[in-house]
Amino acid sequence: MSDTNIELISTISEDNTLELALREIEIPQPGENEVIIRIEAAPINPSDLGVMFSAADMTTASQSGSADRPVIRADVPAKFMGAVKKRVGKAIPVGNEGAGTVVAAGSSAAAQSLMGKTVAFIGGGSYRQYLCAKVQSCLELEPGTTAAEGASSFVNPLTALTMVETMRAEGHKAIVHAAAASNLGQMLNRICIADGIDLVNIVRKPEQETLLRELGAKYVVNSSSDSFMADLTQALIETGATIAFDPIGGGKLASDILTCMEAAVSRNTTEYSVYGSDIYKQVYIYGGLDRDPITLNRNFGFAWGVNGFLLFNALGKLSKETAIAMRKRIAAEIKTTFASHYTHEVSLAGALQLDAMAVYGKQATGEKFLIRPQS
Amino acid sequence: MSDTNIELISTISEDNTLELALREIEIPQPGENEVIIRIEAAPINPSDLGVMFSAADMTTASQSGSADRPVIRADVPAKFMGAVKKRVGKAIPVGNEGAGTVVAAGSSAAAQSLMGKTVAFIGGGSYRQYLCAKVQSCLELEPGTTAAEGASSFVNPLTALTMVETMRAEGHKAIVHAAAASNLGQMLNRICIADGIDLVNIVRKPEQETLLRELGAKYVVNSSSDSFMADLTQALIETGATIAFDPIGGGKLASDILTCMEAAVSRNTTEYSVYGSDIYKQVYIYGGLDRDPITLNRNFGFAWGVNGFLLFNALGKLSKETAIAMRKRIAAEIKTTFASHYTHEVSLAGALQLDAMAVYGKQATGEKFLIRPQS
Repeated sequence: MSDTNIELISTISEDNTLELALREIEIPQPGENEVIIRIEAAPINPSDLGVMFSAADMTTASQSGSADRPVIRADVPAKFMGAVKKRVGKAIPVGNEGAGTVVAAGSSAAAQSLMGKTVAFIGGGSYRQYLCAKVQSCLELEPGTTAAEGASSFVNPLTALTMVETMRAEGHKAIVHAAAASNLGQMLNRICIADGIDLVNIVRKPEQETLLRELGAKYVVNSSSDSFMADLTQALIETGATIAFDPIGGGKLASDILTCMEAAVSRNTTEYSVYGSDIYKQVYIYGGLDRDPITLNRNFGFAWGVNGFLLFNALGKLSKETAIAMRKRIAAEIKTTFASHYTHEVSLAGALQLDAMAVYGKQATGEKFLIRPQS
Repeated sequence: MSDTNIELISTISEDNTLELALREIEIPQPGENEVIIRIEAAPINPSDLGVMFSAADMTTASQSGSADRPVIRADVPAKFMGAVKKRVGKAIPVGNEGAGTVVAAGSSAAAQSLMGKTVAFIGGGSYRQYLCAKVQSCLELEPGTTAAEGASSFVNPLTALTMVETMRAEGHKAIVHAAAASNLGQMLNRICIADGIDLVNIVRKPEQETLLRELGAKYVVNSSSDSFMADLTQALIETGATIAFDPIGGGKLASDILTCMEAAVSRNTTEYSVYGSDIYKQVYIYGGLDRDPITLNRNFGFAWGVNGFLLFNALGKLSKETAIAMRKRIAAEIKTTFASHYTHEVSLAGALQLDAMAVYGKQATGEKFLIRPQS
């Protein structure tokens, strides 16, 4: 084991500045039920950027420091300082998941059984070289799975599987997914094909539509098209989908989805009701790609909900058996159903370069970064 | 029994016109488990106006017909015709509830037991003289309760009680209510005082604040005040309310309530989370006093929901025992907890007068009409 440990931290200071930097910390010692993981690969997910960039205006970012220890500074608009006041002055480690080799283990049998194994991890601070993790936050990868292949074993796979289980638990029979060409969207598409669940994919660009169709998606609608509302309604009629997951949030997409669901479910109703259909229609907002307000134009009756969706809250509503089955499936299918694709690999220092940040900061479909903390 | 039966109907025709009129229909015969009620009193609730006026622009209303048989016509803007197409050409009876005397009864023991009794009724078409109702849609009023006293036994009392039971069933401990000086709001205030539940009343005018305080309300905040957000947050801190009921809908009130709830529940949290508090915050939209879009400025984390709330859907989620207990309580407390106050009494023809419609059409707090179909 090396004797240095570098981590990537994000700090907002009282002078309205966000600073991203690397710092050296001690290599931790494992407790009884903990392991030390040499992190070899960690993805940059949209959910990581919320911690990393927070409320900063990244168009103001500047780079200083050395090649090994770059420092990025950006302005935090004064109007947002109140919302982040609880993190002011605190160095927050970044990175929600990753994978690597267990190089030290606590005394428990469960910890010892992971010694030398390649494991995936969830829990925060994965953009570092050595990390102390509880055993239950680890997933032992199957022999032959590399850290890079297993780096995204949790956030996207669990989110996609939890969407499917939430659909089942809440009595729906098909799913609508927005921003559907994302890594997560492609994963959900593979799960739904494998499980025989109809999935209505909403994308914004023709090339995303083509991509998903090539991946076997049957229902793909383009929200930029003039015929979007009609196309979506038709797909909802064919699938019966009454639950949607939307990572965009801002704007009127959630409202449009509910409007089309209501049109679809009430298409054969001959009796007029001022209250709309009794069939419950649900949109879950699971991200904030667009921070503008959500605008709901209510023309979809009274049987509807727009709710925040956070992986661990949603997972907590499912049974323990379901959660265990999910982990087993992820480990077994990490190279197929749950495979992630990265367009860029960077070191910790490489993640703090303005040109790289300009790319991953866009959260554009088709661009995904993998951090290699040991390089 | 008289041999005429007059009912108030609302019809939208293909030429984009809403027509409100009275028409004569036959006096019905009761089935085995039905009764014929001579309707003596029926309230005009906001929920009735949705059926009655529908999408018409009532500023264009004109009156014709005779004194006994007035006819009101108003334009339906072309853009709304699609939303109401299922009712075009259909004469829709108006009025969701009322009370009167049972003048004929079917052969079942349950129906016969109501013969001659004063009963309240829910189910549609109450703005008429004689109505056929299923026994289970009736509530036998206690001796000494008049039809006028019992006319509003269902919509407001059941809605207020269902709000309280929904709060309990979903694990909240106090309630926020918007437009809280309404008849429904005053009723909810009485229930909460009786049951020892903290209620945060949101009103828009100082005189409504005074009214509620005089009625014993402890927490009243004025959304027109400059200190509204701070006042609401403080009331939420004191009460711990994490569920709200809002009949307004349009605008940003739902968003503001969630923002203040999040501030209240996370006030003692020292650790920053990009996802916000884990404590679930709920706003139910149960009306459309403002038809503008709902605007949600998401600064309240991911543990939130904004959902439509319709009495019968919500009631359906509660146990049968709870529903039976509600009806008993309503009958027992119809002159106290569940008393409604009317500022105007009108005949069926009197309800179709432009000057009356201008008053009840505003849905203003403090103005409430009772229709007397026998007068």
